[in-house]
This record gives sequence, C-alpha cells and structure tokens, in this order.
Amino acid sequence: MITSVLIANRGEIALRVARTCRELGLRSIAVYTTADADSAVVRCADAAIRIGSGPAKNSYLHIPALIEASRMSGADAIHPGYGFLSEDPDFAEVCAAEGITFIGCPAKVLAELGDKARARATMLEAGLPLLPGSRDPITDPAAAAAFAAEIGYPVIVKAVAGGGGRGMAVVHHPAAFPEAFARTRATAVAVFGDGRLYIERYLESARHVEIQVLADQHGTVVHLGARDCSLQRRHQKLVEESPAPGIAADVLDRMGAMAVRGALVSGYVGAGTFEFLLDPSDHRFYFMEVNCRLQVEHPVTEMVTGIDLVHEQIRIAAGEPLGYAQEDIAPQGVALECRINAEDPARDFAPTPGELTECELPGGPFVRVDTHARLGYRVPALYDSLLAKVIVWAPDRVMAIARMRRALHELRMGGPAVSTTAEFVDGLLDHERFREVRHDTAMVATLA
Amino acid sequence: MITSVLIANRGEIALRVARTCRELGLRSIAVYTTADADSAVVRCADAAIRIGSGPAKNSYLHIPALIEASRMSGADAIHPGYGFLSEDPDFAEVCAAEGITFIGCPAKVLAELGDKARARATMLEAGLPLLPGSRDPITDPAAAAAFAAEIGYPVIVKAVAGGGGRGMAVVHHPAAFPEAFARTRATAVAVFGDGRLYIERYLESARHVEIQVLADQHGTVVHLGARDCSLQRRHQKLVEESPAPGIAADVLDRMGAMAVRGALVSGYVGAGTFEFLLDPSDHRFYFMEVNCRLQVEHPVTEMVTGIDLVHEQIRIAAGEPLGYAQEDIAPQGVALECRINAEDPARDFAPTPGELTECELPGGPFVRVDTHARLGYRVPALYDSLLAKVIVWAPDRVMAIARMRRALHELRMGGPAVSTTAEFVDGLLDHERFREVRHDTAMVATLA
Repeated sequence: MITSVLIANRGEIALRVARTCRELGLRSIAVYTTADADSAVVRCADAAIRIGSGPAKNSYLHIPALIEASRMSGADAIHPGYGFLSEDPDFAEVCAAEGITFIGCPAKVLAELGDKARARATMLEAGLPLLPGSRDPITDPAAAAAFAAEIGYPVIVKAVAGGGGRGMAVVHHPAAFPEAFARTRATAVAVFGDGRLYIERYLESARHVEIQVLADQHGTVVHLGARDCSLQRRHQKLVEESPAPGIAADVLDRMGAMAVRGALVSGYVGAGTFEFLLDPSDHRFYFMEVNCRLQVEHPVTEMVTGIDLVHEQIRIAAGEPLGYAQEDIAPQGVALECRINAEDPARDFAPTPGELTECELPGGPFVRVDTHARLGYRVPALYDSLLAKVIVWAPDRVMAIARMRRALHELRMGGPAVSTTAEFVDGLLDHERFREVRHDTAMVATLA
Repeated sequence: MITSVLIANRGEIALRVARTCRELGLRSIAVYTTADADSAVVRCADAAIRIGSGPAKNSYLHIPALIEASRMSGADAIHPGYGFLSEDPDFAEVCAAEGITFIGCPAKVLAELGDKARARATMLEAGLPLLPGSRDPITDPAAAAAFAAEIGYPVIVKAVAGGGGRGMAVVHHPAAFPEAFARTRATAVAVFGDGRLYIERYLESARHVEIQVLADQHGTVVHLGARDCSLQRRHQKLVEESPAPGIAADVLDRMGAMAVRGALVSGYVGAGTFEFLLDPSDHRFYFMEVNCRLQVEHPVTEMVTGIDLVHEQIRIAAGEPLGYAQEDIAPQGVALECRINAEDPARDFAPTPGELTECELPGGPFVRVDTHARLGYRVPALYDSLLAKVIVWAPDRVMAIARMRRALHELRMGGPAVSTTAEFVDGLLDHERFREVRHDTAMVATLA
C-alpha cells in the first residue's frame, strides 16, 4: 500500500507527479531548494520540504537529504521523476533498505540496463536488431580505432554510463577518431565517473523512434505504441509525437513486440522506454538503449492512449497487476509535444535565467500545458532550462500541427532576461520536411 | 467557401471560436465593447472591432453594428456563439440578405423551433415522447387553469419564446396558478417581447439529459451522445458531463435516435441540442426543447468524441458533407465541465464584477480550461457572469471527478471584489448524491 509519495525532483515533472497523487488521494511531499521556492509544486503538493539551496548534487541528487525528508514527512514511497536519481541503482537500493517503495525500476535491472554495453548484449541475445557495434566496452584507443575501421565509418562513440544526450561523439573519418575517443572518455569520467566507452555504426540520417512499455510485477508487459522524437538539437529533443508518422503499421508492431520482448528478458518492472533508430531509406530499425524511467515526452503517449502513466507507475510499484493486455490498447489520433526551454536561439541556445514578467498559457480544445512556472517565477540558473511543455491532440497529424501552432501563438512566456525556444519550435513545425515527414535527427543542425 | 469569420459574441465562447478559426487558417474578427476591451479574444483574434461601450442591446445584440463590422472587415461568415443573436431568425435572414454565411441553423428552422409550442407540436408528430402539455399557446387565464387541472399538478408554465432558463414558473397547487400565470406572462412580454405561454406537466424529480446532434446540408444527421446537466441552480447549469451516467445504453440509444429523427423532421442544419427530461424512477424520457446553437457545455462532448464542434459547424455552414455516419462515432471515457461564475454563493450568487488580482489556471493531464480572463482582467458588470469553464477527461467517472477536484484545487481566480463559484461546484462534486448518481435538477435547491 502506498499512501504518501515524496517527489524527489523539481520543475514541471514534480508538479506532474503531484497532480496524479492528488487525483489518487495520496499525500504528496515536494522537496525544493531555495532557487526553486517559487515553483508551483511547492504550493500544489500537500507538503514541501526545503532540502538545500545549492546545486543538484547537494539537493536533488543528495540521497541522505532525500531519505531524511521522506522520514520526516512519513512518506512511504518516492517518485524520482526523470533525470537526477531516477535511474540510479544505489538510490533504489537505499530506498528498499529504508522500507520506502521506489516508484521505478528495480535496482538490479537499473544496473544492468544502465550499463549501455551490457544492455546491448542483453538485447542482442533477446533477438533485437542492433547496429554493428562493440559487444564489450573498449578502453584501448588502438583496439577501438581498429574496431571502428572494421564496422566502417561513420561511427558513434558512447559512454557506457551515458544518458541524456551527453557523453557521445560522432566520427566520420579515421583521422578524427583518436581525438574524439579521448575527448568522449574525458567527458564520461567527468560527468558519469565511468570512462568506459563503446562504439557503434552511426546512421547519417535516422529517425528517433521509441516504444513506451509498462511492465507489472507479475510478468505482464504491454507497449503503448511509438513516439517519434527526431527533431533534436545536439541530442536534446525539441518536438515529440505519437504515433510515429509515416511508418507502416507492421514495422511499428514489430518494434513494439521487440520492446516487449526486451522488457521481459531483462526482468523490467515499471514504465520504461525502448529507444530505436530507424533508417528512413529502408525502414529497418535498431535498438539503441532503454530509459528506465518516465520520459519528458510521456504526455504524447498519455494523450493518444488515455492512460495516465504516473498513475500506472504508482499502481505497478504498489504491486497491482496491470489489469489489461496488449489488445486492449487502442491509441487514437495524434499528439504532439513542444518543449519550451528558457534559452535564446539567437545566442546558440544559451540558458536565459531570470524573472518571468509575462506568462500566458494556451488553453481551449485538446491543449495541455505542463509547467511549474507562473507570472513572477524566477527561472533559476542552477538547473536545466525546461520551462514548459505544450501538448496537443487532434484526430490527424495535419490538424495536430495546426492546433500546436495555434497554441504556440497564444503562449507568452518571457521577461527582460528570459527568452524561450517557442518561436524556434514553431518554425520547425512549419518546416516542409517536418510536415512531409522527411525529417530526421540531423535536420535541426542543418537549419542553423 | 469561408475565409474569414466575424465572431458576434464575447467572453469565453468568442475566444473558443477564434481558436478553431486559427487552426483552420481562417481569419477571425472579434467584436468588443469598451467593457470587454481586455478580453483575451481581442488579442487572439486576427482583428478586433469595437462596436460600442454599452449594454448588449447596443452592441452584441445590435444587428446593424454587427453587419457593419462584417462589411468593414471583409468577413464572409458570422459565428454567433451562444445566447445573444445565435437563435434569432431575423439575424440569420439579414446575414443571408447581405451575402454573409450565418454559421448556424437556417432562419426558417430557427423560427419554427424557437417557438417552443410549435417545436412541441412538430416533435410530437415526429413521434418523440412529450410530457402532457398544451399543444397550442394558451392566452386565456381561465382556459389555462382548466388545462392545468386536466393534466394534473404540478405543472410548469413556460414562455413560448423563452430560453436560457428565463420565463418559466412551477406551480404546485391550483390556488397558486393564476398569479404564476400572470407573472410569467409579464416576464415573457418584458424579456422576450412575446407573452404567449404554454403549460406542461412538471416532473418533481428529473434528470436533465440532452443529445448533441450534427446535421449537414445534405440530409445526414448524427448524434454525438448524451450530456447530463442535472446540477442546476434556478435553471442555470453548474456541472455537466458526458456520457449521461447511470442510464442504460438502450435508453440512451433511443434518446439519440429520437433526437436524430427530430432533426430530420425539422430540417435541422448545423450543431444543435435536443433537451430531454428523464424520470429517474422509471427512466422514461420526455422531449423539452431544441437549442439551435452551440451549448456552453459542448466541450464535454468534444472531449469524449475527439470532435471539434466549432470546426464541424464551420464545415457544415460551408456546405461540406459530414463525411461520417452514426456508427463512426465512438465516445470514449467520461468528461466533466464545471462553470466558474463570478458570483458570490454566500450572497445568493450575486454577480461580483471587478478586477482579477489572482488568476492561476489548472493544467496537466486531461485538463482543459476555456476562459477569456487573465490576471488583471476586469469582470464587467454588464454581461453574464461566466468567467471560465474547467473541463476534464478520464477513463471513468470516479477518476473524472477526482481529476476535476484536483483541477479546482489548482484554480485561483479572484480579486478584492470578485468571488467565484469554484468552491461551491467542488462541493457538489463531492456530494454523495452526485457521486452515486442520485442527483436531479432539484438537488442544488435543497442544499441552500
């Protein structure tokens, strides 16, 4: 039984979790830092505990502070959101040791799938298609260069412990390999404390397509269809949609079945995402990695399926069976999400912290906004720049794009120091390559 | 072809229409009075024309001003919203004479169904069930009293030209009849300029259940299921939902079929609503009237069907065929709407005009807000008090109620002078009679 949930996160996702807790009659406890004191979650949760004033490592990443806050507030469960500790096996283990339900994947599975090289090996054995790549981590630069030559350029060098688009480098020519390998290794050590790397063949033009899965503790796994997140800037997603457009139903069905198989083989529990790259030239797809947590872009899946994913996470963590099977899932229509970041596209997307002196959010038919900001909110410099997510639903993709552009037209968020990416993503929606489904993960880079 | 739409209305519905116009690539032209200058539609529409500073009769009801604004702005169509001129056959006729497409029902049908006594006669002939009542208007008080005695008390006396909950009186005893008849007649003359009355048997306990229909110009009529609007205060709806809960599918199917038949028989075109009273004791239902326009509560139908009703109105007015049949309509889940009025429940729901110094709207999964207000908005004293509509969707009714209460918890709208009905409707949602579907149109009155 879960009766109260500590939300070990910040920003829009903390509010997102608090909302579902309230709907389920669960007490929600927010944690916040001084810089986040005016986040909407501090007001909307049933309780809020300040856990510091500094950067994430002293607060949202500080396990003892979070455990202490749980004890103080009597929370019997912790929702980790995304990022921060959401995929940290140690955190999951500490929670278990303290008798607190971790609303996420079991520690053992987090450890296995968090190691990208081990995850690749597991999924290869399960029969998932993979791009040619190294089975085990490679540490020797010469051996790595030889392997890259063997699978053929271009290649991508990735940190075994990487994630969130960091710790990776694309290499087009053998001459550039040694420097890229050394640089990625240094980043991996600095950011993830783990310098192990692996190498994969790199697709020049690819669609990023991912499958949302739900797995209960009783061996039932379903998938909730695909999301396309191909519009990215430096591996950061900008626009997401569900279903993935322009891909034959049988291809998506196979991708879904592969994700379910991967979840079953790895003993997955909870909500998770299997990321694939799809080659637009032949619609073959290749497993990339599993994200063992809720994704930023989960709302598009919610909008087409009608399923509240946080509700499902909590039910699963409480030991409830899913209660439905694959054939019961019937996604309807098309959902789009645009991320509104406090960044200035004119200054290479530099973060723009500061006070919001304008904050008008879109509304009306089939428009959803997830944001922790309001008028007077001060965008902190300490954390990531996600300010709001605008999500729309429509019966078809043309109407969904029109509706999103209408919603963005209504949106006014900014301040003397605060710019946002709203106009930039609006331009992407209007781009003919996006409208005609000829976009890929490289498209945004070509626009600059 | 429609390319630009003048919106002959104000408040949330004007913004609602402007939103769909933008999504369809149609130019929208708002009209506004000085008192409404800070409504969101003035900013969101492509153009805005001030048509006066005074009360509705000099602005939103002033046909020459609206036609002039259409000419000035080059609008080729007019959307009348609800209320005001939306069901006025003269307005529809003037539009036609001016070559402007009236996005609504044809003048002839408006005239026929707007006469409640004629509408009753038409629907009786079409085979719709009616409560015992007068076929023709009754003007002689003695004849009226005799008729009331014949059909049996309680009875309801209604203005033939009535609507919006005005011009009606319930009479429980013959002794009270003459005074009620005279009073209703005086109101009917004063408000509608038409003193004709008719008399119907009155159901002490009834559910208000209505069917949304769509009829194109080519003879295709479908219904989009039922809405329950039983929570009313003095015939003003407070909470609406779709589908109507606790009623057997075959009863709702028959009600839907009756509405479609009524629309076909009357030559209906556009979006319309057939209102019925349902006797909770035996689930028999009785035709009340047709609303020949969009309803305030149309969003709950949109949320369960995925159909944008304003989009359909525009397509129908442009002569397009519906393009789908009854079997293509498959409503999903449950939607609820709460009306947030600027009224003070503690002072008998007196209007509370004034400035909004607090305006935080709910968001997140499956929550929709339709409002023309924002921070600093001044609620005018001149017009009706509807400030916002909060709409939610969920897979089932229990979750929909929980979600609505979560959304209302987040809502903060008010000011030094402005109270709202938010807390009052939240109390209705929590009432066991509503939760257990034992509510009726008389329930709210018993709570005071």
